[in-house]
Parts: sequence; structure tokens; C-alpha cells
Amino acid sequence: MTVKTEIPGYDYAKPASADSPVTLDELRQLEASAGWTSEDAAILQKHSRIFDEKAEEMVNAWRAVIGEQHHLAQYFFGPAGQPDEGYKASVKKRFVQWVRDAASRPHDQAWLDYQEEIGLRHTPAKKNVTDHAHAPALVPLRYLYAFTGVVAQSARKFFVEAGVSGDELQRLQDAWLKSVLLHVTLWSRPYTREGMW
Amino acid sequence: MTVKTEIPGYDYAKPASADSPVTLDELRQLEASAGWTSEDAAILQKHSRIFDEKAEEMVNAWRAVIGEQHHLAQYFFGPAGQPDEGYKASVKKRFVQWVRDAASRPHDQAWLDYQEEIGLRHTPAKKNVTDHAHAPALVPLRYLYAFTGVVAQSARKFFVEAGVSGDELQRLQDAWLKSVLLHVTLWSRPYTREGMW
Repeated sequence: MTVKTEIPGYDYAKPASADSPVTLDELRQLEASAGWTSEDAAILQKHSRIFDEKAEEMVNAWRAVIGEQHHLAQYFFGPAGQPDEGYKASVKKRFVQWVRDAASRPHDQAWLDYQEEIGLRHTPAKKNVTDHAHAPALVPLRYLYAFTGVVAQSARKFFVEAGVSGDELQRLQDAWLKSVLLHVTLWSRPYTREGMW
Repeated sequence: MTVKTEIPGYDYAKPASADSPVTLDELRQLEASAGWTSEDAAILQKHSRIFDEKAEEMVNAWRAVIGEQHHLAQYFFGPAGQPDEGYKASVKKRFVQWVRDAASRPHDQAWLDYQEEIGLRHTPAKKNVTDHAHAPALVPLRYLYAFTGVVAQSARKFFVEAGVSGDELQRLQDAWLKSVLLHVTLWSRPYTREGMW
């Protein structure tokens, strides 16, 4: 999709993005392992308007879940132990854009590279750097994985409200889950011991 | 559930199981992060008969998916580059038991410890050891995580065939996905760099 306004730190397909060490062949094997097919890409694309229009509401819903759990919310806290609202707002714009991209971007080299960048931005290598923040330097991998369930399942409400139903609803949910899993799997690479990813 | 026959290498709640370095408090935070509640545990328990009865068929379906993809199947190959059928059969019994346990075991210390053991058995620390096999020493983390989608979504067919429908079907699917995510998240611990899990 077209990015209509410049989002600070949104380095998709830009030189500032990390390069992924994962090859496109390895990506195709990973997609096959998740059961991801061209039909999944197509159904997300078909309904990309839902994601475009509801991305911010989706992120608000996930942020509400995070805000209720101190062990998750703390990764947005400044050194004084309070939420860093500026940091939260900056990250949110990119999180919203991630939803839109996840539903519509092809899984090409630029996409692959930016997943590496997003992964790094959850680790000491790059967390806080983009936004000159002073929050904790790491979001532990276990929370990225576990939160997949919330991101995958809470989107259903928006699909239903948009009038998707029956088999189409199930296929859209399945495609969205697989997309989220592929993203988080790629984000896990910088967390993983040498040779074990 | 009761284990009716002894499964070689099935060290659930036995001294041979690894101890998990994860605390029960950390586990509760992880469950909350995945949106896992007592209602999820209850609906899986309610339908545990489906898992008990269909566990082997489920594993057969997943094994068929693995068998079609060389990059997945190879982790069961012996040094000559052919499937090690003895190893596959031994692992399968424990995989089937895992399905039954996942639907019915409480998330207590024994459960937590055995998830650490399962994680280790996918890595050079313990892969092949239990079965005296000579397959590759590691299943890369990315395949465990990506395959979550297949394990979560392919179970639906069995729920439907057992007569579960409507909201109950959706809640059962959701609970099963969250359960699978929690397991794989715990299995990822030994793969992760110091302090990053």
C-alpha cells in the first residue's frame, strides 16, 4: 500500500533498514512450513481495506492488553518507571503501519529485510535507538511469541464487523494467523543462538 | 490423563526430565501475555476426549505435512540420508502423548519441567539421545514456530467431526492455539541467547 505520510523510523525498503541474512529460498521453506500459500496472500490482499481502515483500532486493542500487564507494559517505561508517552506514540505509528503492510506487502527482499530490522528493534542492538528512548533495552522473546495469540485472535472482531462470515471468515483468520506467525518467526532470528534459528 | 502403556523416553514428572529454569510466576505472566485463562484450560479439558481419541490421527496429519517437505523431513533422516523409521516411530508415540497431555495436564511444575525437556530434545543438548538415533542434532527454531500454524489449524477438522460447532468451536480453536503457542514458547528457551528469552 501507499504510505501517505512519512512515519519517523519507518525504514521499509530504505537503506537504513537492516539486511536480512535469511535467503529468499529459506523464506519459501519457512512459508511452506507454516502452510502459507498464495491463497493466504490473496485473501489478506482482498480484505486489505479492513486492515487499512482498522489498523489503529487493532493496535489500540493490543495496547490495552499490554497496558493491563505490567510485565508487558514495562518495556515502554522510561528510567523513572513511568510510561514514556513519546516513545509509545512513535512506536505506535509504525505498529499501525505494520498491520497494513502485513496484509498487503509481498514477501520479497524488502519485506524480508524489514522483518530483520523489526526483530533487532526489540533487542539491545536497536531497541530505543530509532526513537532516542531510554526504555528497557530488550523485549524478551517469550512475550513476542505468546502475544501472537492475542494479535491473531483479536482481529476476528474487525473481520466480522466488516461483514466477513462463514468459510471466508475462517480462511481470513487462518491467513492472518499464518502471517503473524511468519513475522514473529523472522523477528526471533536475532534472539537465537548461533546456528540454531 | 492416565498413561496406560509405558512410552520409552516419556519422562513427564520423572526424575529424568530436565528442570525448567522458568518460575511458576513467570509462567503465569506468560499465560496472561497469550490471553490464556482458566476458561481455555476448561474447554480443552471438556473436549479432552477428542484429543485422546484423535491424537494419533492428528499426528499422522502433521507427519504427512512434514513428510512432503524435505527441509522438515530431514530432521528424521539417518546419516545415509533416508528416514530413520525406528526413530520416527519412537518420537511419534511421545508426540501423540503430547497432544493428549496438552489438552488435559495442568500447567504445574511437572508440566513446566517437561516443556524444558521437550525443547532440549530439539537441540544438540538432547536430540537423538533418548532414542539413540543419528539424525541431525538440531531442529531449527524457525520450523518449530512456523509449524504452530499447521498444528493449530489442522485440529479444527477433528473438532468439527466430533460435533463441536458455533461459538464453542471457535473457543476450542482459540484455546488450542493458545496452548500450542505456550508450549512452543517454552520450547524456544534453550535456543535463545543468554538473557533474551
